[in-house]
Amino acid sequence: MTITKCIDLNSDLGESFGQWQMGNDEAMLKVVSSANVACGFHAGSPAGILKTLKAAKANNVEVGAHVGYPDLVGFGRRNMDIATDELTADVIYQIGALKGLATSIGTKISYVKPHGALYNTIAHDKRQAMAVIDALCAVDSTLILVALAGSRLIHWAKESGLSVVAEAFADRAYHADGTLVSRKEAGAVLHDPDLVADRMLQLVNDGGVMSIEGQFVRIESGSICVHGDSTGALAMAQKVRQKLQQNGINIASFAKSNNK
Amino acid sequence: MTITKCIDLNSDLGESFGQWQMGNDEAMLKVVSSANVACGFHAGSPAGILKTLKAAKANNVEVGAHVGYPDLVGFGRRNMDIATDELTADVIYQIGALKGLATSIGTKISYVKPHGALYNTIAHDKRQAMAVIDALCAVDSTLILVALAGSRLIHWAKESGLSVVAEAFADRAYHADGTLVSRKEAGAVLHDPDLVADRMLQLVNDGGVMSIEGQFVRIESGSICVHGDSTGALAMAQKVRQKLQQNGINIASFAKSNNK
Amino acid sequence: MTITKCIDLNSDLGESFGQWQMGNDEAMLKVVSSANVACGFHAGSPAGILKTLKAAKANNVEVGAHVGYPDLVGFGRRNMDIATDELTADVIYQIGALKGLATSIGTKISYVKPHGALYNTIAHDKRQAMAVIDALCAVDSTLILVALAGSRLIHWAKESGLSVVAEAFADRAYHADGTLVSRKEAGAVLHDPDLVADRMLQLVNDGGVMSIEGQFVRIESGSICVHGDSTGALAMAQKVRQKLQQNGINIASFAKSNNK
Amino acid sequence: MTITKCIDLNSDLGESFGQWQMGNDEAMLKVVSSANVACGFHAGSPAGILKTLKAAKANNVEVGAHVGYPDLVGFGRRNMDIATDELTADVIYQIGALKGLATSIGTKISYVKPHGALYNTIAHDKRQAMAVIDALCAVDSTLILVALAGSRLIHWAKESGLSVVAEAFADRAYHADGTLVSRKEAGAVLHDPDLVADRMLQLVNDGGVMSIEGQFVRIESGSICVHGDSTGALAMAQKVRQKLQQNGINIASFAKSNNK
Repeated sequence: MTITKCIDLNSDLGESFGQWQMGNDEAMLKVVSSANVACGFHAGSPAGILKTLKAAKANNVEVGAHVGYPDLVGFGRRNMDIATDELTADVIYQIGALKGLATSIGTKISYVKPHGALYNTIAHDKRQAMAVIDALCAVDSTLILVALAGSRLIHWAKESGLSVVAEAFADRAYHADGTLVSRKEAGAVLHDPDLVADRMLQLVNDGGVMSIEGQFVRIESGSICVHGDSTGALAMAQKVRQKLQQNGINIASFAKSNNK
Repeated sequence: MTITKCIDLNSDLGESFGQWQMGNDEAMLKVVSSANVACGFHAGSPAGILKTLKAAKANNVEVGAHVGYPDLVGFGRRNMDIATDELTADVIYQIGALKGLATSIGTKISYVKPHGALYNTIAHDKRQAMAVIDALCAVDSTLILVALAGSRLIHWAKESGLSVVAEAFADRAYHADGTLVSRKEAGAVLHDPDLVADRMLQLVNDGGVMSIEGQFVRIESGSICVHGDSTGALAMAQKVRQKLQQNGINIASFAKSNNK
Repeated sequence: MTITKCIDLNSDLGESFGQWQMGNDEAMLKVVSSANVACGFHAGSPAGILKTLKAAKANNVEVGAHVGYPDLVGFGRRNMDIATDELTADVIYQIGALKGLATSIGTKISYVKPHGALYNTIAHDKRQAMAVIDALCAVDSTLILVALAGSRLIHWAKESGLSVVAEAFADRAYHADGTLVSRKEAGAVLHDPDLVADRMLQLVNDGGVMSIEGQFVRIESGSICVHGDSTGALAMAQKVRQKLQQNGINIASFAKSNNK
Repeated sequence: MTITKCIDLNSDLGESFGQWQMGNDEAMLKVVSSANVACGFHAGSPAGILKTLKAAKANNVEVGAHVGYPDLVGFGRRNMDIATDELTADVIYQIGALKGLATSIGTKISYVKPHGALYNTIAHDKRQAMAVIDALCAVDSTLILVALAGSRLIHWAKESGLSVVAEAFADRAYHADGTLVSRKEAGAVLHDPDLVADRMLQLVNDGGVMSIEGQFVRIESGSICVHGDSTGALAMAQKVRQKLQQNGINIASFAKSNNK
């Protein structure tokens, strides 16, 4: 008897807006097992979102709601000091809208991954974190929350009864304490596809990676985030998938196994 | 044995946006049996919509999605030559968003009433009408469509398998052929609450009203639209409700009876 | 020979948006000497702004650009971590737009007063403050900046060569060190029109007010901010104007005297 | 003595929005003599617009305001039944905003070219045309209006005292009566760069082109519109410039000569 190791690859998709294209959804849907689909607040317009949802379904890729701050021009990357009840309602609205579009083509969403500044803020800010958690609990408590590995958000969400999947970033360096190296520091972002692929193989096999300080650090994660918004990013994502598969690791959504 | 006559009163609610207030939702929810709740495209922001949904639930008022064109600054009152697939996706998105907010407080939406320029356009424009009909069929074909009495939309929607409720406007004059007198013509809008209440009593009892030409005209309708966006409008709506009830007519949602 | 004392009264106007009304611009234009007119980012749509500009001109009231964060749904009241170059460009854009509308009716703008969260942030945050200062210097360095009395912004703006007018808030309590009592504390906002009017008379005559701690505190200010967004606020603003005038103080824009 | 022939090449630039890129402004600014710069309503965010304005200045390219309907998600390509006073105010607002940004870097705008659906509508719809014309007259009557060659707009604008420049489209077929072949018809859009360049040479030298019916048709035009939103479009625009220059025709803005 053999046990097949399994990991999820996720990426941000559906981020075009009206006539403006972003990313290469078709190509990335051949790489990932989970598609974080924009919901219209930081990116994504309904007809474009629907197109991405159809492509995800055709590729048998699981779909999550990539909810963000209401800030199109800033692409949801600017911190906003948003009131708790407004944030909860904004997140419910976005999840509902994406659910509606998914339902209309006979598919569904299984998880939620907050975007950009909201993602970073709720990793540590309990007020905004609870606003997002409350949204999921209220609209559909079976939705899995994808959260930064090692963040306090994971604890708060589990305490609230949500299923949580921690995620690692393929192209980012980690400190020995498991935190991400800030983008402001040298070496924070990794550019070598082979190195990145090797690190992700180690992540799956050994449960961690080499930290920027040179020690092995455990990163508990059920999903790896990859990017597809440039030619180089796409090639790196493809390399990660290839390396994992060549080493007998199955690329599959956490949602598929969790939902059984 | 007595048969109680029954009619639905509907009104547009949830049309505040952020800090901007519009209408008097609390007062109108004492008058109507159906609340057409804005979905964020022509009006309504998530936290405000949620507040209206809670108030509707507390007042046992049925909720419909008041979908509109994506035109906040124009309040959805300007015709837009929108592509078919974009309109369908926009309508699904709005219905989904409102469904999500309703679900989060343990209630639901039972119908869809398009707003403003979209309402007027799909009464006669088959391309846009079919785009809206397709949206309902795709996302939830049990949603009832509220449409202008006498419009071709009613025929198209029924042909597509949707349940349809025709509506009359309490404060509008009708031609002898059943069409609305254009707002550009004198006498199009009625201002006397007593006259309006008497007309609506006649509508329910006799199935029609006196036309502007002086003849009785049949208006087949399962709902009456009343307004609450001014003190005078609110008083008129209250008078209509009072007059109907005093004459033994029950104010109740079409959705409640249809859904049994 | 007598010297007439003089003070400016300013208020936020032009804050309607599309169909949504806010405030009572017509009434307030009889009270104030300076109108802070919204520029479309936190509030104000072009046709409505133009209407307010025409009314300001008819009432011989000076106009300032009330620039804000790009956040309609939050009414510019939510802190945003906006990039420096984006903030500078956003402020220039808003000033330019308002200048264009003013030019079209033969009037002009003479000052800039940032709004809401932007106003509060640049009182102490040097990065965002310099972004706004750079905008004024680049587009029209004769524009006067209206800033919170006692704030560091006043220093930074003067250092950059701008003319600055400090403002006091009629309905707010001050600490003995000249800072505003936080809205989170009891007594922060004053509601008695007579008390407020008396305090403003003292401000003009003696150069300060009684602090919440009970000591007199100097508040160097060339303008007093009053509100008109409720019936009570309007009455208070009218009382302030009346009290000042009854005591021989002239209500006049700082811009009029500065520009001579 | 020799007379040098001269023609303007214009293109739509500054149409990125926040993180979304569109077109290749740097490359096109080497090709054209006039840049139609988006003003934020159909495309363009302030920081991005400013970047394009700086690049235009560096390349000595004249700038015009590319004003559009308030419809980001539709990219200003959807007809909108907008009220006259709202359209006038919207156009003034956009011109003012762009003027502000231009002023901040020591440059200016010299013309206005409406965009997309607005461009097409005002070619024949007098109500909306006059709303745009009134905007220019009110804010700056020295602004030149760029209009579809042969359109009634040219007549209305001249009657109102505006300077007008008619434009031809490099990649479009014309009927024998001087109107554009509709995009719905075969052959409406030309794809062969050499053919297009030859036609534009004929346009400048002979004052017209071969119509789709096979007869020569006069097209009175002072500017040629080229596109840069795809690799093929850029190559075609470069070919047009090269062909004209190789035949002794000077590429220069109409504004430069008009303003002397």
